[in-house]
Amino acid sequence: MHSVLVTGANRGVGLEFVRQLLRLREPPKHVFAGCRTPEDAMELQRMAKDNQTLLIVKLDVSDETTFAESVEMVDKAVGEKGLAVLINNAGILRLGGTETTTLADMEESYKVNVMGPLAVTQAFLPLLKRAAAKSEINSHHLSIHRAAIINITSALGSLQLCTSSKYIPYRTTKAALHMLTQCMTFDLSPAGILVVALHTGWVRTDMGGKTAILSPKESISGMLNVMRYLTEINAGQALTWEGRILPW
Amino acid sequence: MHSVLVTGANRGVGLEFVRQLLRLREPPKHVFAGCRTPEDAMELQRMAKDNQTLLIVKLDVSDETTFAESVEMVDKAVGEKGLAVLINNAGILRLGGTETTTLADMEESYKVNVMGPLAVTQAFLPLLKRAAAKSEINSHHLSIHRAAIINITSALGSLQLCTSSKYIPYRTTKAALHMLTQCMTFDLSPAGILVVALHTGWVRTDMGGKTAILSPKESISGMLNVMRYLTEINAGQALTWEGRILPW
Repeated sequence: MHSVLVTGANRGVGLEFVRQLLRLREPPKHVFAGCRTPEDAMELQRMAKDNQTLLIVKLDVSDETTFAESVEMVDKAVGEKGLAVLINNAGILRLGGTETTTLADMEESYKVNVMGPLAVTQAFLPLLKRAAAKSEINSHHLSIHRAAIINITSALGSLQLCTSSKYIPYRTTKAALHMLTQCMTFDLSPAGILVVALHTGWVRTDMGGKTAILSPKESISGMLNVMRYLTEINAGQALTWEGRILPW
Repeated sequence: MHSVLVTGANRGVGLEFVRQLLRLREPPKHVFAGCRTPEDAMELQRMAKDNQTLLIVKLDVSDETTFAESVEMVDKAVGEKGLAVLINNAGILRLGGTETTTLADMEESYKVNVMGPLAVTQAFLPLLKRAAAKSEINSHHLSIHRAAIINITSALGSLQLCTSSKYIPYRTTKAALHMLTQCMTFDLSPAGILVVALHTGWVRTDMGGKTAILSPKESISGMLNVMRYLTEINAGQALTWEGRILPW
């Protein structure tokens, strides 16, 4: 991976992605950490001070007006090589059952978890296409070493594995994100861009809570390992942090 | 079915549902035709003139402020028996691929196709619960003859059958609706309410276009036949107008 942009990078899974990307044996030349308020992202700021690879980018996935400036910033840094990998990680978890789910939570969840990945993809697509076109990899093959979009998802979005109603705003939007992943694949595979959804597992973050079974370190090292070996066979799939297929 | 409410009943599939419900050998005592602007629903008005069973109800599924009055109207008509069946039929079809889909179409589609069925269900739930509780059917069994919610869907919402990116706003919202159907099932089966999603097939309506393979008559008579035999085994499933399981 020549360059990677991670959205929602100020904490949790996103922050750990940035941390581990910077520590790879062959780290990307550019790691862009997208977050809504860079001035509050203390940990990212601390990391950026020690590492020129990391650039913090102001990016609110549910606010299109923040896109132009961040695209320009990334464009300037990556130049001709384009942006290799976009990790659509920003997401929110809202709870609610049939009687308790609010329409406000439904709407906000859709804006961040589904419209966000679509809008950010649209904004950075010219840079991703550039990376795909400039790649030295055989043009019949897809991989993160050429150009890829990784949509971060959850097993809670799996219809086959649905076992409760507790998370309606989250479950419905992640199911929709799986469909978006599939739809994008039809358009972007021919352009040389691999699209895959990755399930983080249940991770000890603000979102996952303290009782979750995986540390961020375990989840992200698993996902980075899975990402490394993705090919065109995986286009449109949802996979777990261990590389298993997540059933629709 | 003692009583049925159909949303989006002014045309297409919804209008044909109303027409065929009124013509059943044992028609419901009350058929409520929900539509945004009753004053423009000429065909419904014509039908209501000849048939006291039919009541036109002003109901915009994406506008909560229209709910209180319509719930009151239905409540008054059904009384103690409650509302037996809610058919969440209102929906919109917006097209778009990865690069062409607009956020406005995404948002509007989610509001009508997913938040709509949830909000209308929440509004009419007390009446549906009343029907379930008052039913003479053995309380271990679920059926439309007791109380049921039918979410009208499309094979375009099936992840396994996804073959193109053309309908992103529609496909993503119908996948989300399938998840909503499953989640609702966990909450509402114990209350005696059956929740099922039904795929209309590809129907010659304003939405389906002139080249579609099914007439509204064929589609709706198929769905009504499927509905008649639904049991607790079908709770949470998506079925086609022919009664086949629609894969997730």
